[in-house]
Amino acid sequence: MSLDTVDVALPRADASRLADLLAKFAEISESTDGVTRLAYTPLERAAHRMFTDQLSALGLRTWTDAAGNSYAERPGDAGPAPAVGTGSHLDSVPRAGRFDGIAGVAAAMEVARLLVEADVRHAHPIRFVAFAGEEGARFGQACTGSRIAAGLLSSSDLADLRDVHGVSLAEAMRAVGLDPSRVEEARWRADDWAAFVELHIEQGGVLEAQGVPIGIVDLISGSTRFRLDLHGRASHTGGTPMHQRADAMTAAAEITLLAESIATDPRHHGTRATVGRLELEPGSITTIPGEARLYVDIRDVDSDRQRSTATELIHGARAICERRGVGLDIELLGDASPVVLPIWLRRRIAETCTATGTAYRVLPSGASHDSQMINKVVPAGMIFVPSRAGLSHVPEEWTSSADLAAGTDLLARSLLALDHELTTTSSAEGAC
Amino acid sequence: MSLDTVDVALPRADASRLADLLAKFAEISESTDGVTRLAYTPLERAAHRMFTDQLSALGLRTWTDAAGNSYAERPGDAGPAPAVGTGSHLDSVPRAGRFDGIAGVAAAMEVARLLVEADVRHAHPIRFVAFAGEEGARFGQACTGSRIAAGLLSSSDLADLRDVHGVSLAEAMRAVGLDPSRVEEARWRADDWAAFVELHIEQGGVLEAQGVPIGIVDLISGSTRFRLDLHGRASHTGGTPMHQRADAMTAAAEITLLAESIATDPRHHGTRATVGRLELEPGSITTIPGEARLYVDIRDVDSDRQRSTATELIHGARAICERRGVGLDIELLGDASPVVLPIWLRRRIAETCTATGTAYRVLPSGASHDSQMINKVVPAGMIFVPSRAGLSHVPEEWTSSADLAAGTDLLARSLLALDHELTTTSSAEGAC
Repeated sequence: MSLDTVDVALPRADASRLADLLAKFAEISESTDGVTRLAYTPLERAAHRMFTDQLSALGLRTWTDAAGNSYAERPGDAGPAPAVGTGSHLDSVPRAGRFDGIAGVAAAMEVARLLVEADVRHAHPIRFVAFAGEEGARFGQACTGSRIAAGLLSSSDLADLRDVHGVSLAEAMRAVGLDPSRVEEARWRADDWAAFVELHIEQGGVLEAQGVPIGIVDLISGSTRFRLDLHGRASHTGGTPMHQRADAMTAAAEITLLAESIATDPRHHGTRATVGRLELEPGSITTIPGEARLYVDIRDVDSDRQRSTATELIHGARAICERRGVGLDIELLGDASPVVLPIWLRRRIAETCTATGTAYRVLPSGASHDSQMINKVVPAGMIFVPSRAGLSHVPEEWTSSADLAAGTDLLARSLLALDHELTTTSSAEGAC
Repeated sequence: MSLDTVDVALPRADASRLADLLAKFAEISESTDGVTRLAYTPLERAAHRMFTDQLSALGLRTWTDAAGNSYAERPGDAGPAPAVGTGSHLDSVPRAGRFDGIAGVAAAMEVARLLVEADVRHAHPIRFVAFAGEEGARFGQACTGSRIAAGLLSSSDLADLRDVHGVSLAEAMRAVGLDPSRVEEARWRADDWAAFVELHIEQGGVLEAQGVPIGIVDLISGSTRFRLDLHGRASHTGGTPMHQRADAMTAAAEITLLAESIATDPRHHGTRATVGRLELEPGSITTIPGEARLYVDIRDVDSDRQRSTATELIHGARAICERRGVGLDIELLGDASPVVLPIWLRRRIAETCTATGTAYRVLPSGASHDSQMINKVVPAGMIFVPSRAGLSHVPEEWTSSADLAAGTDLLARSLLALDHELTTTSSAEGAC
């Protein structure tokens, strides 16, 4: 099977069908600006049901694992063999757009439809995946479903991660009908999977700025997340002289600016540090904040620099708090190293681009992705489609239907090319 | 009537009765740490009913005005004459203590009880007052009830002040059965009042540090409060390089530290500037904050310095936001000038201290008080009792029952001394 054969046999992705699918998923949301469909909520499960229902209707076998990840499989002609997979996640941050994660799931669903409707043949099973709980917005740690699939998170960890209401990840899973004591069963076996390709929106502005429709990811940033609990002394804003204060807010402000200054230092080219969330108590205009909870997110494509940034910031925060008479507790919420994706898989996607005359650019990902976890057990690749104005995690997040359809076409052809290559390789191996 | 006569006729305040009264008021609270009884809520009205019910039971005439201020009057022997008044407020900030405001109302109620039970005679009517909505915690502007009494706030202003849920002050008043269109009727007439004395906790640490049981307030700090709305650009914390950000949180952090630095500059000795409340949107660990709302409270005993601090901070905030590509809107929430309390009234309280052998210290008030407003129409004085560790606006706020009883004794004797002096003066004036 040559790339030309693939190209002839496979119809083109339908841009308006993709747009309709994204619109339907977007309706499954809390009533906020944009989309709010947090990890391990009934809304996330409803989106997963839409995924399995639609793929069941195409005649595919579907199932859900103990981590809440949903699957559909189209069998291959070669009988039992490791699968080629694609997919992404269906949960969102608060007040998000409709593309982050969902675009990759919708692309997978469109690929499934194209394969079924044109009855395209492939040797390996092709699996379509919707991961659960990719966003770290609720429990601090990102990529829960794919972490479990990769064997990086065990049932005993699930009781320790808690959301802002104090609900543990294990409790949240139970509340939506999942069994956290059985998540080990959701672990992927390396011999059951041959390769995985995720389509995702870029969430940055490189592709749009360069007018290139496709990005092929070479490496994914690591992220270190922690919460700083600052314990000052609440008191009356009028009655308390400046020199007698232990103000948790001014300490938090100083730490926020330190994070920014470390990340913008020339030694840290590429580091990204953000305080995205800050909670003050009691939070009254006439009371000096006694408590501040500061959430810090550090990203880097360089593993050592990622950790040295975190260490430098924590040392600095300790010094700031000590000088201000403010107590400090530090809670690590999540830590994932940067990942270099396998070069042979990246090259295969690039060759598919060349064969179909599609312009592309190789680029790193600033955001974390399920593929980062999956790559620990199965070779993973990533295809980026452009994000308008580089915006993501906001209602204004946007990717044109045409760009998404072009990415879906590349995804479908890449999966078939991988199927073909893996078949050829294993035949060749068998002949040796 | 000499001070000695007063001292003989009047029994001592009952410390445990005062403590019981404060405990009863503290029960009227949202279920939070400490006391939460916000302005113009059913809880505040319930506390006012307890005030009028108990004073009615003593045989006093009670009433409530259109602003929600509650009154009780013990008639004087001279027939219709301007009243001598005392009281404070019954609302609280969120998670407050049980003393701020309430101590002054409880002291007034104890004075009423002492006068009635010992049948002490006085020429002028003595009025006991519980002001409504003193704390600015809910609507940003402090001293609503006393502002209305002083003619400083009209019915047309009440629609513009809103709480965090968007409820206007006028709507909140209607919801608890008050008529905001009639607040002009609540205005005090200068010829109806002779003097007003408020007992309050210090909310600072001077009296405790110096071991002095009584403070006599010479001046009350002014306060300028505003909200800064910072409009940045929300986006993904991983996908967005540092140099492409418009982060509302880092801008807010810089403004917070600027406020602190202005207030601690030696040119600003006595200025107090605080950011007590900060709200971020969307408030997610993986999204750069697009919006920040920063609440600033500036206090000063010097009127010019108070305004120049506000101006300097606003200029600085504009420069910070411009440099960071962040939009800025400023909303003035409240502005009250510092007030020098009448020296003759302060002297009368001091003489009462001397006559009863009570140590005192004259000191300014960093906090705002109803007396600051009332002094615009009626000469007002203030008695402070010590605050443990200087803490206020927190559950740990504390004043010993013995200190409160000593303050109540001074308050009762000061009111009778004023009654006596005003009678003598007006007789003398009549004779001229």
